[in-house]
Amino acid sequence: MTFNIVTPTIINQLVEIVGEQYVLFDDAAFKKYGHDETEDYLFYPEVVVLPRTPQEISAILKICNQENIPLTPRGAGTGLSGGALPINKGILLSMERFNSILEIDERNLQATVEPGVITQIFQEAVQEKGLFYPPDPASKGSCFIGGNLAENSGGPKAVKYGVTSDYVLNLEVVLPTGEIIWTGANTLKNSTGYNLTQLLVGSEGTLGIITKAVFKLLPYPKYNLLMLVPFYAADEACAAVSEIFKAGVIPSGLEFMERDALLWGSEYINDNSISIPDNIQAHLLIEVDGNDKEVLYKECETIYQVLENFECDEILFAEDAAQKDKLWKIRRVVGEAVKAKSIYKEEDTVVPRAELPILLNGVKSIGEKYGFKSVCYGHAGDGNLHVNIIKDNMSDEAWENKLPEGIREIFELCVQLKGTLSGEHGIGYVQKSYMDIAFSEVALNLQKAIKSNFDPKGILNPGKMFV
Amino acid sequence: MTFNIVTPTIINQLVEIVGEQYVLFDDAAFKKYGHDETEDYLFYPEVVVLPRTPQEISAILKICNQENIPLTPRGAGTGLSGGALPINKGILLSMERFNSILEIDERNLQATVEPGVITQIFQEAVQEKGLFYPPDPASKGSCFIGGNLAENSGGPKAVKYGVTSDYVLNLEVVLPTGEIIWTGANTLKNSTGYNLTQLLVGSEGTLGIITKAVFKLLPYPKYNLLMLVPFYAADEACAAVSEIFKAGVIPSGLEFMERDALLWGSEYINDNSISIPDNIQAHLLIEVDGNDKEVLYKECETIYQVLENFECDEILFAEDAAQKDKLWKIRRVVGEAVKAKSIYKEEDTVVPRAELPILLNGVKSIGEKYGFKSVCYGHAGDGNLHVNIIKDNMSDEAWENKLPEGIREIFELCVQLKGTLSGEHGIGYVQKSYMDIAFSEVALNLQKAIKSNFDPKGILNPGKMFV
Repeated sequence: MTFNIVTPTIINQLVEIVGEQYVLFDDAAFKKYGHDETEDYLFYPEVVVLPRTPQEISAILKICNQENIPLTPRGAGTGLSGGALPINKGILLSMERFNSILEIDERNLQATVEPGVITQIFQEAVQEKGLFYPPDPASKGSCFIGGNLAENSGGPKAVKYGVTSDYVLNLEVVLPTGEIIWTGANTLKNSTGYNLTQLLVGSEGTLGIITKAVFKLLPYPKYNLLMLVPFYAADEACAAVSEIFKAGVIPSGLEFMERDALLWGSEYINDNSISIPDNIQAHLLIEVDGNDKEVLYKECETIYQVLENFECDEILFAEDAAQKDKLWKIRRVVGEAVKAKSIYKEEDTVVPRAELPILLNGVKSIGEKYGFKSVCYGHAGDGNLHVNIIKDNMSDEAWENKLPEGIREIFELCVQLKGTLSGEHGIGYVQKSYMDIAFSEVALNLQKAIKSNFDPKGILNPGKMFV
Repeated sequence: MTFNIVTPTIINQLVEIVGEQYVLFDDAAFKKYGHDETEDYLFYPEVVVLPRTPQEISAILKICNQENIPLTPRGAGTGLSGGALPINKGILLSMERFNSILEIDERNLQATVEPGVITQIFQEAVQEKGLFYPPDPASKGSCFIGGNLAENSGGPKAVKYGVTSDYVLNLEVVLPTGEIIWTGANTLKNSTGYNLTQLLVGSEGTLGIITKAVFKLLPYPKYNLLMLVPFYAADEACAAVSEIFKAGVIPSGLEFMERDALLWGSEYINDNSISIPDNIQAHLLIEVDGNDKEVLYKECETIYQVLENFECDEILFAEDAAQKDKLWKIRRVVGEAVKAKSIYKEEDTVVPRAELPILLNGVKSIGEKYGFKSVCYGHAGDGNLHVNIIKDNMSDEAWENKLPEGIREIFELCVQLKGTLSGEHGIGYVQKSYMDIAFSEVALNLQKAIKSNFDPKGILNPGKMFV
């Protein structure tokens, strides 16, 4: 697909739509908006535009359609699959000014939010009213709700509470052609027409630009308990995961960390309070939550009983809120810690949870074959394993040319285990060449046809999700 | 759209594909397969075909495409929106031979099922293994899983556990053009491509024919408690609903029944054990469930405290399993009871739950204006109110010509309250002319374009969902 360049005339039109101070084309802006958190990619757009209303976005998209200019929407730039990278230049549309929580409806346990609200700020705002918005990606302190919608983000709480899509009731969307629609209704159930809402969630900014989202909320659970369980063997830790569910407990968090993940995470925040003996290969971080402390203690007892059948070391039971916060903080920084340590590639593999030990061992074998090291961690309760491939001593040549074959083998193993490429990060720019592993040609073509319906000229976030 | 007729040559081809005994064209078959549970509609197909494999369906659909023959897929025929009515004649495709539970995967808490399995049989099969498949439409004893998928069915447990779509992980689908695809992966999270799975769920057999479904399951909750609460005023009962949630309790059932609903339901099963004093206008049936009896008693106490602020009569607390069964049985037969009593039309209105009192009062006012009586009941916890419009003394002329305007007013009120046309029954044949109330023209056209992608010749279940 060939696009036109953004001419001075178009710049003037953009200025007219959003105002001069919201049209940026200096080098600092290009640097800032040209990357996200995906490896070290940097793509300069031709212009950065910061609209404030759906109508402004509509006007901009109409220009893009007429002039054949690519437009890449962007949330907070915390994405891990390159979805917000302006790889075809053109207009970078930052949603940062859509930053209002429009309504918290305590009668209906719902909230209406703009996409540029930071996830944690939204969570805290509803929590003040005793309400709970569970999806909590590791980047919750900086990511936008809109990005969470685009990638269908999860996080540790997904295992009990589900992912972003499970909370979305209705979306206001500016279509690539400039029309503004609502996708559904603000109801808990809906059997009215095709599910456009769920089609938009996880569509990575390729089908439309979300300008308002209506979420359902839950009552905030009063208590939680957290424990850290050290295992002598990593695959034993993975195997314990599905046994916990089979025992009838649904934890509110069930995270797996390989030895290096916990070690590097602790180092990264300069914390040495958690001792990790040499013979410990992995940890599970297990949280239960609810409104009744007695029940939680009983659930912990059940978990203890399950763990008795596995080879694990002494369990660390978090004593207070501070210790809980620290454990979660370490878990959340693992991604950044790995990143700081080495050149890396992160894969967001996901399989049915009982297949995790096979996946983990498979990743290690494939690593041996191709000569890479990996640090694995993630949402074990969901079968969602983040595989961080570390460049380490691998040659540049092997990293560039051989590694993609290794990654392909990892994904082939996932699909063989009835899993898929991405659990919560999306496909974006960096995984698109692997989509043929997850979908047949017919299923891929159906998706491309849907894309063409929504975006006949292909101007919205081109070059993402599909090759 | 004009279609061709099913010629003897085509019949021969069908016989070759599925075998002679599975191609029916006698009057008894036409009567049996020409109706569902929607009012008294009856449409004869030209032929009834009972395939057994996706490959057979693929071969049949290829003929339909080539010869321009309409095909209507059918589950158990318990639908309430006419989705399975062969309104354009052609081929009626019964899925009844797809009746195997293929796998119950206790390691992953998943099951793979064919669409012709009866919902209750599936529920009981997983319950035997301590697992729980919550969606439980009133017709669960006779409806098929495939129909539940087509209409995105709910039921009383949806309030706590969600609807059919919340349990679907992956679908095998025969496309209208004959290709067979899987829509996703057997994972709890998935950010890989567009959500074809959720696009198929609730698409009412217009986008493809589901031939296998992978569901996630939960551990079966050990205990439940059930109470029946009589109210002196129906809108007070509706108002109590959202207060229960605000108090932090999420019941596993929260059903509303107007006086006549409970009365007629009791009569229908010849049960007079529940006394309904003259001054009682409505009931709430409230269930809580979980693994800890103490917690359930506490939740009941919280509910009692909430109810103290409302004018209600003495609460009936179900004493044992038999009484629970009876109360649920009465609730489940209300639909049939209304049907047996009078000519009727059922609307499946849904709004945010706190708007229920406004909806209920609105329905009554609109009834007065147009001269119809209504019996309302349904899943109050979800804001899903089944409005049964009773013909009673209404003239045939008014029933045919004036009533549609009244129904339009009801739906307009729903949408004004941020609700929509159908919560769990679907649009099908009988509500399609109201779709313009729920969707803008642009949003409707997007849906029609998706339909054309999947089904370029428009042969699969034509005349449903859209006018």
